[in-house]
Amino acid sequence: MSKEITSRAQDYSQWYNDLVLKGSLADYSAVRGCMVIKPYGFALWENMRDQLDRMFKETGHENAYFPLFVPKSFLEREEGHAEGFAKECAVVTHYRLKTDPSAKGKLIVDPEAKLEEELIIRPTSEAIIWNTYKDWIQSYRDLPLLINQWANVVRWEMRTRLFLRTAEFLWQEGHTAHATKDEAIEETKRMLNVYATFAEEYMAMPVIRGLKTDSEKFAGAEDTYCIEALMQDGKALQAGTSHFLGQNFAKAFDVKFLNKDNQQEFVWATSWGASTRLVGALVMAHSDDDGLILPPKIAPLQVVIVPIPAREIAAQEKISEKARQLVTQLKASNISVKLDDNDATRPGWKFAEYEMKGVPVRIALGARDLENNVAEVVRRDTKEKKSVSIDGLSGYIITLLGDIQQAMFNKAKAYRDEHITKADTWKEFEETLEQKTGFVLAHWDGTPETEEAIKEKTKATIRCIPLNSELESGKCILTGKPSTQRVLFARAY
Amino acid sequence: MSKEITSRAQDYSQWYNDLVLKGSLADYSAVRGCMVIKPYGFALWENMRDQLDRMFKETGHENAYFPLFVPKSFLEREEGHAEGFAKECAVVTHYRLKTDPSAKGKLIVDPEAKLEEELIIRPTSEAIIWNTYKDWIQSYRDLPLLINQWANVVRWEMRTRLFLRTAEFLWQEGHTAHATKDEAIEETKRMLNVYATFAEEYMAMPVIRGLKTDSEKFAGAEDTYCIEALMQDGKALQAGTSHFLGQNFAKAFDVKFLNKDNQQEFVWATSWGASTRLVGALVMAHSDDDGLILPPKIAPLQVVIVPIPAREIAAQEKISEKARQLVTQLKASNISVKLDDNDATRPGWKFAEYEMKGVPVRIALGARDLENNVAEVVRRDTKEKKSVSIDGLSGYIITLLGDIQQAMFNKAKAYRDEHITKADTWKEFEETLEQKTGFVLAHWDGTPETEEAIKEKTKATIRCIPLNSELESGKCILTGKPSTQRVLFARAY
Repeated sequence: MSKEITSRAQDYSQWYNDLVLKGSLADYSAVRGCMVIKPYGFALWENMRDQLDRMFKETGHENAYFPLFVPKSFLEREEGHAEGFAKECAVVTHYRLKTDPSAKGKLIVDPEAKLEEELIIRPTSEAIIWNTYKDWIQSYRDLPLLINQWANVVRWEMRTRLFLRTAEFLWQEGHTAHATKDEAIEETKRMLNVYATFAEEYMAMPVIRGLKTDSEKFAGAEDTYCIEALMQDGKALQAGTSHFLGQNFAKAFDVKFLNKDNQQEFVWATSWGASTRLVGALVMAHSDDDGLILPPKIAPLQVVIVPIPAREIAAQEKISEKARQLVTQLKASNISVKLDDNDATRPGWKFAEYEMKGVPVRIALGARDLENNVAEVVRRDTKEKKSVSIDGLSGYIITLLGDIQQAMFNKAKAYRDEHITKADTWKEFEETLEQKTGFVLAHWDGTPETEEAIKEKTKATIRCIPLNSELESGKCILTGKPSTQRVLFARAY
Repeated sequence: MSKEITSRAQDYSQWYNDLVLKGSLADYSAVRGCMVIKPYGFALWENMRDQLDRMFKETGHENAYFPLFVPKSFLEREEGHAEGFAKECAVVTHYRLKTDPSAKGKLIVDPEAKLEEELIIRPTSEAIIWNTYKDWIQSYRDLPLLINQWANVVRWEMRTRLFLRTAEFLWQEGHTAHATKDEAIEETKRMLNVYATFAEEYMAMPVIRGLKTDSEKFAGAEDTYCIEALMQDGKALQAGTSHFLGQNFAKAFDVKFLNKDNQQEFVWATSWGASTRLVGALVMAHSDDDGLILPPKIAPLQVVIVPIPAREIAAQEKISEKARQLVTQLKASNISVKLDDNDATRPGWKFAEYEMKGVPVRIALGARDLENNVAEVVRRDTKEKKSVSIDGLSGYIITLLGDIQQAMFNKAKAYRDEHITKADTWKEFEETLEQKTGFVLAHWDGTPETEEAIKEKTKATIRCIPLNSELESGKCILTGKPSTQRVLFARAY
């Protein structure tokens, strides 16, 4: 095997990069901070996208598409929003190139094609969308407006990581408009729950739902809700956010509606998003030192069948026939399956390759197995190997895929639960972050100054104020000032 | 009805805009040349995209995603390509904004955040993709490489039209790499045929397959194949192109492979694309003065059921019950159906609204109809109205949807076939273009000068050299010089 993977113990960060590159998920590109999503990685993203899209449609949302460009003056309208995004904007200033008169074959920017107003590549689309909603919303009959967009966005980042932090990334952004504050808050929470359900049931990744502190919330939001997952190195990863935007954007773009009492009111808004970052989360939540481990519900390939070459032609033909039958049976049950009968590579090489790619189930069919009417079935998550009767094999596989999905979630949840630690003293707090890692539940005095000070001292941030947590009086871990609730700290991606 | 549509006879161009806007397909945006695709229009595009995507996957292609940005120097590498696109490039020159020190709340481009090399928003992705393929292709075993990308692209246009010509548009671009010239040409033709099949079988829009002349071919291609459709105003519309790129991009980006004889060779390439422009073609190919007419196979909504309010509650309940039964039956057959029981609008208003939106079949259910065990069924394409027995109604509807699909194609084909005219003199040529309109088959001397002169005199361009045409000696329509084959002229979008 030429595809050596750095182990997690040796260098977790390099292990991650190895998996993404050697698992054929993505590649670096020649454009600073941008990545290429390779076919296998894109197929994984397609499965995630399609499932989220179904869940959005089931909750009454429709897709639409808004321009890539945001005029600079639109970004300025909502003050917090402008401040939050100004530092990472890619700016289009010209609309034409021309041939360089001083160098044959070279192009230069045509100075005569300067835009009157610069265009920003959308870092998010609130500004351009709310400017449009102004034309679409007149009366309460036009509400709620429940729209989602799948799009690329650009946020100029200085330090990038494949999937986790790239200048351009793919995402969806929901933008909804409501007649009342309550309805908008309900929508914000509904979509947070959609993300949580998706993460847990499809990605097999347990999450904690919570509210961001003021300093961590979305630029332009009243409240930002989030789901936080735990990676295998004990660092947290924000896996989706849902924002209650109040009337901030309605006021910035003057979007009013005539209510049932015939009065003009500003509209209430939400927005919510999840991105290709989830692919990075998926990799880090489950995989091991031999490669990716993908949950069956979203794996591009759920089952691979590897025939073991036999010496005799008759035996070989019997293997091929059995393999093709199995493919037909599994496909009939909507299982994605590949028969890898490529002669150019040996079974051992194939085994390693599909382990690397995280295919949940591998079936090997050999001459001796067939004589005994069995096949060798290996599950990727535990590497458990079993001889299974050929009769009823497809039924066995379908059950096994469900078992793997559940086992992956259980394993990740057990790890996550073990890594939620209550700390009551600064010493406990620091030691937990350093040695045990993971989430730390601790009291905080509620001020952004203390939050910042803790971050500087420990690199840990407040991931969220968990939604399900109980009130409990205590003392701030740093300042000793009174607190009414524990919040969730962690070092994070 | 407040939604007045300009008639085709009165102003074809305004009729088109009215349909797009009032049929809720798209809207103008605040960004010059960019449009907003509204939910109904996007649902239509999704159906088209999903069908094309299935056809690409069935022919062995995989999706991937490449960066939005193309470094300027990459664009320069293939000379013809650079010349072709330089004049319509949106250019990113800076990566940060900052607050304007002289005006509170305003943002300015940070002069310190100037990019060393300008980035072009992709007008198409050959350059960035072939730079990547260099790393992916080493040996004949890596070929063919069959990749497609769904993406947004930007070509700065001075005069724009909703869907037909916008600065930003959505499309797919296939980029394939092959070991031999023959294989690449075969792929180019295969994908042309995929587009033609899609246009004819799904969009119900007949097309002519042909080869572009040198002056109309893609910048960087050896040969450009295209499909050309005819709109109801007698103008042609290019509905998809497939390019044989030879070794141009392989040479520009130094992409070689080790062949079976252990020798280094340049790779052969194709690219092919279709865009949201197809939505505009669909509108213009079929619709009438009352609104859109959408083919059942890609209509976002195939059937609408409108209950007619009854005076008596018992009758009303019976209508509702029947309507819900019908919805269940049709959904079980995978028909997309909506029951519009909104009390706030009258049936007449609803009828007009669904006519405007081009829903293929409308079913009205009234008390008297139910007494007679019938429903009123209206097909959108012919407006034919029929009383149909409630028993077996869902089966009737399923057959009807198939009939409508076929009838729409037949009608468009009859119109198209009537509008292919052979012209042998300049007078016939000009008169046909002016009076009869449509395609004109005429002899051409094969020179770009004559092609350009004909375009200047008549605004007609050579749409293509049809693939199925026979050799026939004749004289150029303009110069009288000898010609061996007729080519297809038309005024075009």
